[in-house]
Amino acid sequence: MEPSISIGDHLVKRLLDLGVGHVFGIPGDYVLGFDKKLEESRLKFVTTCDEQGAGFAADAYARLNGLGAVCITYCVGGLKVTNTTAQAYAEKSPVVIISGSPGMGERYKHPLLHHMVKDFDTQLKVFQELTIASTVLDDPQTACQEIDRVLSAAVRYKRPVYIELPRDMVDRSVVAAKSGFEEEEYSSDPHVLDEALAEAVEMINAAKRPVIIAGVEMHRFGLRDQLVRLLEKTNIPVASTILSKSVVDECNLLYMGIYEGSMGPEVVQEYVESSDCLILLGTFMTDLNLGMYTAHLDPDRTICVTSEKLSIRYHNYENVLLRDFIQGLIEAKVERRPSEQIPHPEPIAPFSAVPRRKMTVKRVFQGLNAFLADESVIIADTGDALFGGVDLVLGCDTYFLSPAYYASLGFAVPAAVGASFAVPSRRPLVLVGDGAFQMTGMELSTVAKYDLNPIILVLNNSSYGTERPILDGSFNDLHPWSYSLLPEIFGGGKGFLVETEDEFEAALRAAREDTDGFCLLEIILDPHDISPALQRLTASLAERVRPR
Amino acid sequence: MEPSISIGDHLVKRLLDLGVGHVFGIPGDYVLGFDKKLEESRLKFVTTCDEQGAGFAADAYARLNGLGAVCITYCVGGLKVTNTTAQAYAEKSPVVIISGSPGMGERYKHPLLHHMVKDFDTQLKVFQELTIASTVLDDPQTACQEIDRVLSAAVRYKRPVYIELPRDMVDRSVVAAKSGFEEEEYSSDPHVLDEALAEAVEMINAAKRPVIIAGVEMHRFGLRDQLVRLLEKTNIPVASTILSKSVVDECNLLYMGIYEGSMGPEVVQEYVESSDCLILLGTFMTDLNLGMYTAHLDPDRTICVTSEKLSIRYHNYENVLLRDFIQGLIEAKVERRPSEQIPHPEPIAPFSAVPRRKMTVKRVFQGLNAFLADESVIIADTGDALFGGVDLVLGCDTYFLSPAYYASLGFAVPAAVGASFAVPSRRPLVLVGDGAFQMTGMELSTVAKYDLNPIILVLNNSSYGTERPILDGSFNDLHPWSYSLLPEIFGGGKGFLVETEDEFEAALRAAREDTDGFCLLEIILDPHDISPALQRLTASLAERVRPR
Repeated sequence: MEPSISIGDHLVKRLLDLGVGHVFGIPGDYVLGFDKKLEESRLKFVTTCDEQGAGFAADAYARLNGLGAVCITYCVGGLKVTNTTAQAYAEKSPVVIISGSPGMGERYKHPLLHHMVKDFDTQLKVFQELTIASTVLDDPQTACQEIDRVLSAAVRYKRPVYIELPRDMVDRSVVAAKSGFEEEEYSSDPHVLDEALAEAVEMINAAKRPVIIAGVEMHRFGLRDQLVRLLEKTNIPVASTILSKSVVDECNLLYMGIYEGSMGPEVVQEYVESSDCLILLGTFMTDLNLGMYTAHLDPDRTICVTSEKLSIRYHNYENVLLRDFIQGLIEAKVERRPSEQIPHPEPIAPFSAVPRRKMTVKRVFQGLNAFLADESVIIADTGDALFGGVDLVLGCDTYFLSPAYYASLGFAVPAAVGASFAVPSRRPLVLVGDGAFQMTGMELSTVAKYDLNPIILVLNNSSYGTERPILDGSFNDLHPWSYSLLPEIFGGGKGFLVETEDEFEAALRAAREDTDGFCLLEIILDPHDISPALQRLTASLAERVRPR
Repeated sequence: MEPSISIGDHLVKRLLDLGVGHVFGIPGDYVLGFDKKLEESRLKFVTTCDEQGAGFAADAYARLNGLGAVCITYCVGGLKVTNTTAQAYAEKSPVVIISGSPGMGERYKHPLLHHMVKDFDTQLKVFQELTIASTVLDDPQTACQEIDRVLSAAVRYKRPVYIELPRDMVDRSVVAAKSGFEEEEYSSDPHVLDEALAEAVEMINAAKRPVIIAGVEMHRFGLRDQLVRLLEKTNIPVASTILSKSVVDECNLLYMGIYEGSMGPEVVQEYVESSDCLILLGTFMTDLNLGMYTAHLDPDRTICVTSEKLSIRYHNYENVLLRDFIQGLIEAKVERRPSEQIPHPEPIAPFSAVPRRKMTVKRVFQGLNAFLADESVIIADTGDALFGGVDLVLGCDTYFLSPAYYASLGFAVPAAVGASFAVPSRRPLVLVGDGAFQMTGMELSTVAKYDLNPIILVLNNSSYGTERPILDGSFNDLHPWSYSLLPEIFGGGKGFLVETEDEFEAALRAAREDTDGFCLLEIILDPHDISPALQRLTASLAERVRPR
């Protein structure tokens, strides 16, 4: 006789098979039965303050762990993670959204059950717009295959997926699938791959100064080691993008810095834009990522490969996997380049605090640069936390996480929760503006609840500072909070009020030494002080917003 | 020559024409141009901490004002108000969602602009599932008519609508429409109406003990005065539902109380269920609203009219307006009933605090009952704040707001912002559990920013208390916050820590006297203490959740 298993247990098992260790969420009556299964399983169910926080935490977890999951109730929970799911979709983070829903047996005659919107499938339809695959487990005959199909899509495409579990299906017994999760094997079309590689190799070898731009997909698809081998073999210099910062160890001698049009370092822009062969590996061609319309990359000199398409000059190849193409380059006869003079991030200058001098955005990042240790995770929220953060010179093994394309505010604090569980050996350093902090900063409660110890820098300029230079008005003013007193509210951690450079230095030092709980540094900044990178960005943005 | 106006100005003008005075939202680069228009107009642009807060505030505002509006940026803002829009849809609250979006001129060749998900119309598709009408103002030729069409649908159906404004359309000049907003005149089919009224009147006159159940649509469609006239003419007793609490002044002698199956007062249940003619006026037949499957209303004795349909016994009439049907009943020969012995809310007992006795949920509501003044707005969040709140005996002119059908957590604090602007003469009294407060309580910052003065009771039982009796687990535990210290964070208001009855009485008194700012009462409760109404509800719910 075939062994049997419940649908809920099968879902738990598959998540574990795929390396998920933590699920983020909030309980609710339509999902309580599955919550109980989570609690009784080897998965840890991490509960946040708001579902939005769970969504962002799962996204950060997925970026670091390879797969993440969020578990919420029907509509009142699910519809609170639409924005975080959209971000995961846009930036390719594989998050599994698990939502409870009314039992199939309750739907008879279509009663108006609580938490319903238009119809039983309203939430499904919404998530079909925001995920790469979705299912409602309404049929015990197909539930296991559906779970496998949808999880497999998350793993393959690195995009979020949606699984809806009616509450009377959680304990329904089904025949257990015969084996564990079988990842489907996808491969490139060998003829197409050969032709594309031949053309690419010829183009690279004919070039005088080829350059690689390494995108975020190198991280998402686990290709960082392959990239290092390609660099070692070819000696071609490499830049990263704002979204993929840290995909190449910044101490690698072939690493030039971030390329982001005229927002990034001028020397990198010059080197990249004057190259006669651009090799874009897993790079999203997005506006923010490429310096907001200030990038000048000539398609006629470009090889661009992502998980979705491969273009050389003005023509495309289908059915070539990113992984196979890069492996092909490593194995092909790409000539090794002689070492050249290339840009490289400037060595970190020691930070000497000027006593009583007011803090500025520029000095925040200079001070941090001197402070950063290897082995950390830096999480930057949207705004100057990100733009300023781009100029940080990272250690050899540092992760840099940010929503640099979708650019939702409020990612960083809940992301610190996700990152802490994904990589417990690393202490997250969080950069967040006050506008973003006012959205999700209460997830410090979750940080305290689980005894996590991130260091959090709140850049307090009393503003949506990114917007002031674009178009200012009283709507850009933020109500002042005493952020540094928040540890008293949440009963954990330490707060530091930082107005001057010496206070900043002392607080950073104290935070590094105190690893028992979180440390929140509230850094007072002038409402009109912004980083040089942001100055360049907003000038370009303002042109598009102001009435003409 | 025809006068011209910009699309943005036309939208502002239409909102003003329809009585909107305040728009809630958060700025963002795709909507900054319209934000500036709001700031320069007679509309007040109220900015909240998170878009979720703006969505809930606009919902509360719409319930009290007749129309509300929220203004946010593309995707990263819009997708944060999907849940609040779903609630407005489910509970018929007419909220206008105004979202900025990329300019039409920027979309050329489909570049990956920041904040994008799958495609330019992803957000539109999501909101089509959650609204009654939607439009993208991408064509100056039709923009004005589209604005009018969509706003008209909000007014007619009392449901949310979606207007997307590409940023390069805000200042596009169009020919001004010739007249102001013309509300279309809808009317009933006179033949159908006559036949339905004749049947209804005969059924009511033949009955021995008819009963009216007044639903929330009486409020939404502005029919409270009509209802009073119907009661005065016929002398038929009336009950309300949990969602429509306060639709009938509770000091009206014909008012019996809330009917909600066995969750509500037993005497009301008995009277209603033994009636031989039930007249349901604008009542949603939902699970929570009708006591979670414990209601027994016999269709064979029922006349049920809403804005969507009219049923008498087992047959339906089409094309009859709620307003016309009730007006017809008032004018028809419905016999006046002799006054009878009917249930009525018990007179409020004076509250005498027992010194040093720990607070309980029951005593919270007894104490409040003695404290309530006329002329107030009570806002109850989902959970025991609502279930306990149902037993409050309201003054003659008190509004009671709650999400009693959709039941999203986190409504109450931002709703206090919306209510304060909609009805500035009334001081909101907010009832909120700690679970809901942890989701949106940071909107106290918005309360402080605009010098609003609600009284907020945080029912702190360290739990998702509604869920414990259904299925308990560590996921129902909440991290403890020092809620009463929050005024120090937001720089406004006063906090009170309440553990005993005498502290409760003193805090209520102090809060009533201090009208300068908000007062937050943190009331410490036992994690397993729940109201009697919730006990009855959860017993019924638990049967559906527990594994069998």
